[in-house]
Amino acid sequence: SMRSPAWSCVVDSPSTPHGYGEGLYFSDGRRKVDYVLVFHQRRHNSLRSPASTSVSHDRLSVVSNGNFPPSAGSDLAPGDHEMRLIRQEFEANLQEAGLEIERDKEIKAHGPSFTRLHAPWPVLCREAEFLKIRVPTKTVESGFGSSMSTVWRKLNQPFQPKVPRQDQGRTKFLSHSFSREKLHLYNITSKETFFDNTTRGRIVYEILRRTVCVRTCQTIGISTLIAKGVYDAAFPLHDVSALSAAVLNLQGWARYSAFYKYQPIDLVRKYFGEKIGLYFAWLGVYTQLLIPASIVGIIVFGYGVATVDTNIPSLEMCDESLNFTMCPLCDGACDFWHLSTACGTARASHLFDNPATVFFAIFMSLWAVLFLEHWKRRQISLSFNWGLTGTEDDEVRAHTHTHKESLEHTSVRRDSDREGQMETKTTVCHGCRSTDKLTWKDRLPGYFINISSILFMFGLTFSAVFSVIIYRITISALMAMSPDPAIKSNVRVTVSATAVIINLVVILILDEIYGNVAVWLTELEIPKTDTNFEERLILKAFLLKFMNAYAPIFYVAFFKGRFAGRPGNYTYVFNNYRMEECAPGGCLIELCIQLSIIMLGKQLIQNNIFEIGIPKLKKLARAIKNKGSTEKEKEEGKPPQQWNLDYALAAFEGLTPEYMEMIIQFGFVSLFVASFPLAPLFALLNNVIEIRLDAKKFVTELRRPVAIRAKDIGIWYNILSGMGKFSVIINAFVISFTSDFIPRLVYQYMYSPNGTMHGFIDHTLSYFNVSNFKPGTAPHSSAHKDISFCRYKDYREPPWSTDAYQFSKQYWCVLAARLAFVILFQNLVMFLSLVVAWVIPDVPKNIVEQLKREKKLLVDVFLQEEKEKFQLIQSLFSKDNPLQAGSHLLQQAQGIAAPGRSSTLPSGQTQALVGDGGGVPRARCRAASFSQFTRKSPSSPMNENENSRHTAV
Amino acid sequence: SMRSPAWSCVVDSPSTPHGYGEGLYFSDGRRKVDYVLVFHQRRHNSLRSPASTSVSHDRLSVVSNGNFPPSAGSDLAPGDHEMRLIRQEFEANLQEAGLEIERDKEIKAHGPSFTRLHAPWPVLCREAEFLKIRVPTKTVESGFGSSMSTVWRKLNQPFQPKVPRQDQGRTKFLSHSFSREKLHLYNITSKETFFDNTTRGRIVYEILRRTVCVRTCQTIGISTLIAKGVYDAAFPLHDVSALSAAVLNLQGWARYSAFYKYQPIDLVRKYFGEKIGLYFAWLGVYTQLLIPASIVGIIVFGYGVATVDTNIPSLEMCDESLNFTMCPLCDGACDFWHLSTACGTARASHLFDNPATVFFAIFMSLWAVLFLEHWKRRQISLSFNWGLTGTEDDEVRAHTHTHKESLEHTSVRRDSDREGQMETKTTVCHGCRSTDKLTWKDRLPGYFINISSILFMFGLTFSAVFSVIIYRITISALMAMSPDPAIKSNVRVTVSATAVIINLVVILILDEIYGNVAVWLTELEIPKTDTNFEERLILKAFLLKFMNAYAPIFYVAFFKGRFAGRPGNYTYVFNNYRMEECAPGGCLIELCIQLSIIMLGKQLIQNNIFEIGIPKLKKLARAIKNKGSTEKEKEEGKPPQQWNLDYALAAFEGLTPEYMEMIIQFGFVSLFVASFPLAPLFALLNNVIEIRLDAKKFVTELRRPVAIRAKDIGIWYNILSGMGKFSVIINAFVISFTSDFIPRLVYQYMYSPNGTMHGFIDHTLSYFNVSNFKPGTAPHSSAHKDISFCRYKDYREPPWSTDAYQFSKQYWCVLAARLAFVILFQNLVMFLSLVVAWVIPDVPKNIVEQLKREKKLLVDVFLQEEKEKFQLIQSLFSKDNPLQAGSHLLQQAQGIAAPGRSSTLPSGQTQALVGDGGGVPRARCRAASFSQFTRKSPSSPMNENENSRHTAV
Repeated sequence: SMRSPAWSCVVDSPSTPHGYGEGLYFSDGRRKVDYVLVFHQRRHNSLRSPASTSVSHDRLSVVSNGNFPPSAGSDLAPGDHEMRLIRQEFEANLQEAGLEIERDKEIKAHGPSFTRLHAPWPVLCREAEFLKIRVPTKTVESGFGSSMSTVWRKLNQPFQPKVPRQDQGRTKFLSHSFSREKLHLYNITSKETFFDNTTRGRIVYEILRRTVCVRTCQTIGISTLIAKGVYDAAFPLHDVSALSAAVLNLQGWARYSAFYKYQPIDLVRKYFGEKIGLYFAWLGVYTQLLIPASIVGIIVFGYGVATVDTNIPSLEMCDESLNFTMCPLCDGACDFWHLSTACGTARASHLFDNPATVFFAIFMSLWAVLFLEHWKRRQISLSFNWGLTGTEDDEVRAHTHTHKESLEHTSVRRDSDREGQMETKTTVCHGCRSTDKLTWKDRLPGYFINISSILFMFGLTFSAVFSVIIYRITISALMAMSPDPAIKSNVRVTVSATAVIINLVVILILDEIYGNVAVWLTELEIPKTDTNFEERLILKAFLLKFMNAYAPIFYVAFFKGRFAGRPGNYTYVFNNYRMEECAPGGCLIELCIQLSIIMLGKQLIQNNIFEIGIPKLKKLARAIKNKGSTEKEKEEGKPPQQWNLDYALAAFEGLTPEYMEMIIQFGFVSLFVASFPLAPLFALLNNVIEIRLDAKKFVTELRRPVAIRAKDIGIWYNILSGMGKFSVIINAFVISFTSDFIPRLVYQYMYSPNGTMHGFIDHTLSYFNVSNFKPGTAPHSSAHKDISFCRYKDYREPPWSTDAYQFSKQYWCVLAARLAFVILFQNLVMFLSLVVAWVIPDVPKNIVEQLKREKKLLVDVFLQEEKEKFQLIQSLFSKDNPLQAGSHLLQQAQGIAAPGRSSTLPSGQTQALVGDGGGVPRARCRAASFSQFTRKSPSSPMNENENSRHTAV
Repeated sequence: SMRSPAWSCVVDSPSTPHGYGEGLYFSDGRRKVDYVLVFHQRRHNSLRSPASTSVSHDRLSVVSNGNFPPSAGSDLAPGDHEMRLIRQEFEANLQEAGLEIERDKEIKAHGPSFTRLHAPWPVLCREAEFLKIRVPTKTVESGFGSSMSTVWRKLNQPFQPKVPRQDQGRTKFLSHSFSREKLHLYNITSKETFFDNTTRGRIVYEILRRTVCVRTCQTIGISTLIAKGVYDAAFPLHDVSALSAAVLNLQGWARYSAFYKYQPIDLVRKYFGEKIGLYFAWLGVYTQLLIPASIVGIIVFGYGVATVDTNIPSLEMCDESLNFTMCPLCDGACDFWHLSTACGTARASHLFDNPATVFFAIFMSLWAVLFLEHWKRRQISLSFNWGLTGTEDDEVRAHTHTHKESLEHTSVRRDSDREGQMETKTTVCHGCRSTDKLTWKDRLPGYFINISSILFMFGLTFSAVFSVIIYRITISALMAMSPDPAIKSNVRVTVSATAVIINLVVILILDEIYGNVAVWLTELEIPKTDTNFEERLILKAFLLKFMNAYAPIFYVAFFKGRFAGRPGNYTYVFNNYRMEECAPGGCLIELCIQLSIIMLGKQLIQNNIFEIGIPKLKKLARAIKNKGSTEKEKEEGKPPQQWNLDYALAAFEGLTPEYMEMIIQFGFVSLFVASFPLAPLFALLNNVIEIRLDAKKFVTELRRPVAIRAKDIGIWYNILSGMGKFSVIINAFVISFTSDFIPRLVYQYMYSPNGTMHGFIDHTLSYFNVSNFKPGTAPHSSAHKDISFCRYKDYREPPWSTDAYQFSKQYWCVLAARLAFVILFQNLVMFLSLVVAWVIPDVPKNIVEQLKREKKLLVDVFLQEEKEKFQLIQSLFSKDNPLQAGSHLLQQAQGIAAPGRSSTLPSGQTQALVGDGGGVPRARCRAASFSQFTRKSPSSPMNENENSRHTAV
């Protein structure tokens, strides 16, 4: 009697049906529902579809001969009929691929119908081997995580999420790519649970993705069918009851009260897959690193608050005795004014414009680098812990198709074409559309529309910004002309506040528009793969949204007030309106206000309205729409099945919006941090909420997404790193051009008579001879009749100089200093960033060591196994006589006449021997793998030595 | 009767001994010499060593029990005796690992003794599997390289090296990592030649590297033994006769007459391994890309030549009628002088300082980026064509030890420690030195010495530069005081020329010193792995050599003339000597001279003396030393064996010096290209020679290096890319500060009365009132008695201004413009570089497509094979009756009762069936792998379908 080898060792009795979670199983209560396909019966149709009549869980190879029974539903409209045929062929092909199918028992007149898929063990094994899925082996690696000291762990304890012990214990099973040949190596306790639901879902999705539909429609994959409307949706099920421990924690993770705790990233990954796990890990790292940034930001702000009363420039500005008479702020209607009236702005300005800000800008630039480096390390640790190291990048294959589910218009051409280039099976049939490569001529119109549209969008953004500027100029001019003194005194505040709010609203509206435009534009390009599609989409959306969010801020930072001209020679727009100037305290305070309002407003409104409000509204709408069918079911007294519940949720639309929101926020934190040191704090507060919000959304409001394997966060890393680099330049310019830091330095070291800041305000103000006003621009009625000179903020020659009102030597000197600072700052920070990135190794040290240890362990396991096999065969030899004939044959086969070698033996015989010998199953197991081994390494001298030694003993 | 499966199919009769190349085989003429170990018999010793008496080629497991016969050589000195014991143990361990050993028949009194190693087929197989060496499969991929058009290929033909057709044909065998289980897949025509000599050498080296020597000395690996002096050398043999076609081409490649041809990179790689192949490929790409750079450089230079007669500033300088009287160039001895006398320098200066140079600087920065991107692509193509894609980075393991061979002092501690951390086998024995980790306390002194030494070296370099400056200042002052007018008129030329030559000599000397210092310093650091060692060494050597080569050039570019002061207020060093000024034509011309002389001199001298002369001298020395033994052999009438010949060659000392030379040259080409547009041309001329020189050296003057697998050029890429980035900044500063480009622009657009350059020279010269000379500094005797003002080149207020001799407004204006240009240039070029790097995909398109195709092909092969197996088993079933018992057992084992499945069958039985059936070997082959398959995929429904279809037919 013989047993089949290797894999027979791990066979268990089939696991008993679970008591709970009925909705997660086929009607037999044993087979898990791994995936659900949903379609809508759109017309009235009382006939049972031919395929569903004969469907039972044992029907496996009925339709495999490729001939379909003629459709009985001839009363259907052609479109619907065709769709049913497509579904029939597709599902038949799924069955041919090994999946098992269960359909709804009764066919509903309308409403959603569900096709449930189950992947049996052989299919799971086959696909797991194909996908090179890593599974735990029996080998346990101990001493894992022992590097953390006990004190630190105790201190850290309250922040850790409550995760069942075994998940974070010190033991770790070595993992290895699944292979059907090495089943005995894996830690298989039950075939039902060896592959968790997430993996099962991924495997079924992989089959769905590549299954073709040749006869009825020339397409590949479920996503195309969804795009064509053949199916409504396809999703794996949430398994709240099955993975109770994990999900309880997921829900704990999603609670706001857990805001101070670490996230249970490993569980998130187990439930949602690597891609979503990486998102939350990234968000966690970002939020965590915002804490030190916030603290330093608060300290810098505190420094500003503490020094505001000792700061000489702002004291001088507030000093009424100095009595600088300033030139009027508008033509005609405005009067001369005293600088001391702008004291408030000056003091506020000092809060953000002080030497600590320069330090903070450098700090934040390095912080950005540190963040990226830290993330790189974390990413590598995660991909190591999740067993993704060494796997080839299958991301190209296991890419997301989910965005297409959200598209209303079916972009079939793109889909089929993209797929067609990846797989070539469609060329089998005659009726297929040609899957030739698109030439550049085909692509040219797409690119053309793309570029022109993006330019148009840029133009739109700029004109929006410009409109707000015009609004500000005109309204302030009009209000200045108003006779009411109450209005007059509040001009600046009113205008600024309303303008910023208009900006914010415009940004929010354009943001939504641009998101959709980017999708449309990317579709026009017909990218080849889905990864390609995603990358292009992200890049476009990022460009548009970045411009949209930052254009008004850039205007305030670098352009406002620079084209205003000088008294007697102002710049005018629309003939009459003077270009706006900055506040007397400098443009920095305006930049700060603009930045804080847009940042806070964007976050609050997007979080509250777009992320909470709109999904709730959508859910409500869906609930009303499906009211009929659910009510009917309720009448029948059945509890709603899990697939009904999940179908009621919104479709998962990809991580792009989540990432995008965070990246734009990262811009607020890094780009203009020199002007607003509290930005990290606000970002931190937002993110603490954001994590829980996203978690809640993923757990309770979205259908379960397919687990997607991903090693990294992809193009987002590049965007982050690009932004980090850009922020260095921007901060350099903000410090040197927007703030008064450089002029102060130059004054102190070059012009100050005694090396202090006394006299700085006087130095920055130029003289203007009031007789030089152009006709009509001088104040109509002035309280200062007797003055002959007024002052304005600029470095220009005084009226009594030979080249009056030209830029003075100080101007060029300050300009040179500013530019030199930009060069110094940029290169210094870039150099420091390089050093930081170079000093911090990409791969954490413990991971390197662990990788080495694991490699060694695996080799040891391998060697140990070979040794055991030899000892076994040796003991067999000592019992029975060595089969000389067999070994002779073997040597002949080897073609080497090596006398004295008799340890190897043809496998068949050995197997027979072992089989006859009976013994414990463990022995059989070894023998089985031994037969494999003899085939592997014939006559290795090392083995021979071991062998001969054994004989000596 | 049964045959062992799978691997038995490929067995050939052992190949017959080759007729030629006797020196490459053991004395039996059949077994290849894969590696040679050399040791010197240092004392007179007429006794035969005990091990060598019994050595014959069949002695395989004699010493495997670990007990050595007591040494008979008691008359040996202890050191020598110990070494012999170590050799005995080591060689015994090599034999235990499967290597076969042949020693010299007679023991020579003194002179080198050779131990020749041969790796038999099983060892090769085992190690190839372990090292995951890629070997060609039988599957042929056609259509390779068809993307190139025929016209292009014909045009390209004369530049292609003459390589045998089959190597560059359109067919390519798919390659796959070697596995003993899949022997039938590989294209094995003969076991002797399946692994080429390079691979065999690598495999033996791998064994040599990891073989331990526990009892006699606690070490691992051959390199430690060489460092200890146990062995003299270890190397694989050159096989000039065996690989005749390839080597003929190698020699063709090494001929100067082939300078215009592409290199036969694939052959180079085949012979020398990937690492050296990559070096030559890199050198080739670099040289190739120097061609367009040279052409553009020549054009830019040509533009300078063409416009020199129409250039207004230089015309104005030469115009004697303008008659600018300049302030004297030295105190007292020198007289006032006319600017028109410096006409020659002005004209020469224009050759290099014209607007085209700015364009060229931008061009070269982008060229550097393009070069790196192009190399990245080439590297990926190469590693794809060489089958390195997808292999894990074994470079850490298969690293080079060769540098140690060149070290005289044995750094045993470092070696054993480094090895000890990589492998843990040494802990087996008791007497081993502890392989604990070094704590930071152990490392601190090393680091301290390191940093202080590097600082000391920097100081040395700087003081060398400073000494040359002092030399220049003093000599020119002394020569100026000389009464001889002939000397006086040649001051500048003489001083400059001698100073540059002194610089050059200093650089060459320090270069050699620094190379050795870097090695010494790196050893102090005790790095963990050899890759680590190499990287640190390279980094240190690069830093030191870079500083050394560029310090004088940096001085001339950015510091010379900036601290000279102004007339009446000069800066003095050593009380009496005025700091040197630039020539009247600007510093750029001096920079240009400095650069060209150092670059050309360094290349010529290093090429001629260090690379040709010194090796020849060394060879001569070795020849004289070994004269005795070779003469004796000649007396015996034997032709010298290949190992004798190879031992006479110099040891291979790594690629670091070769790369370093090229990287420093790359610096000349990229860093200061704005000042010397002809640099690429000179580099090109040098490299064309360099390639052939290096090739010649590797083929004929060095022992054959061990083939080392490498995917990329490692840290050199980072250094190149860092230099590319640095060059952007340097070029920006050279253009804006060293050249007169910006002042000219500022003059033209801000100060010129009519928008032309007329009056520029006058504008750049400030006035000095001769009455303001400090006492004793005015010219003692002057031909210009009547002048009251002299001119000097600077932007300062005239003597009649209120703040006389202060920097003027123009100065600040020009400074601001210069700084603005730096910012603009740097950011523009960096942005363009990013765009270029982003637009060019890292992986060439055809490689991506080919990878896809190959993956598909491999899957197809796999599927096809499974199908064939099933057809085979099907046909077997139709002959014999299906064995119901067997299939029943199988199903039981699977634990799944699936009626109607009878296609699978336990492997043992099938095998028996096939074995009985006899038939052609091909059939056996399939059956053997079939048995493997049944174990692989039990009851896959897909297979079942195929099966049932087959039955229907």
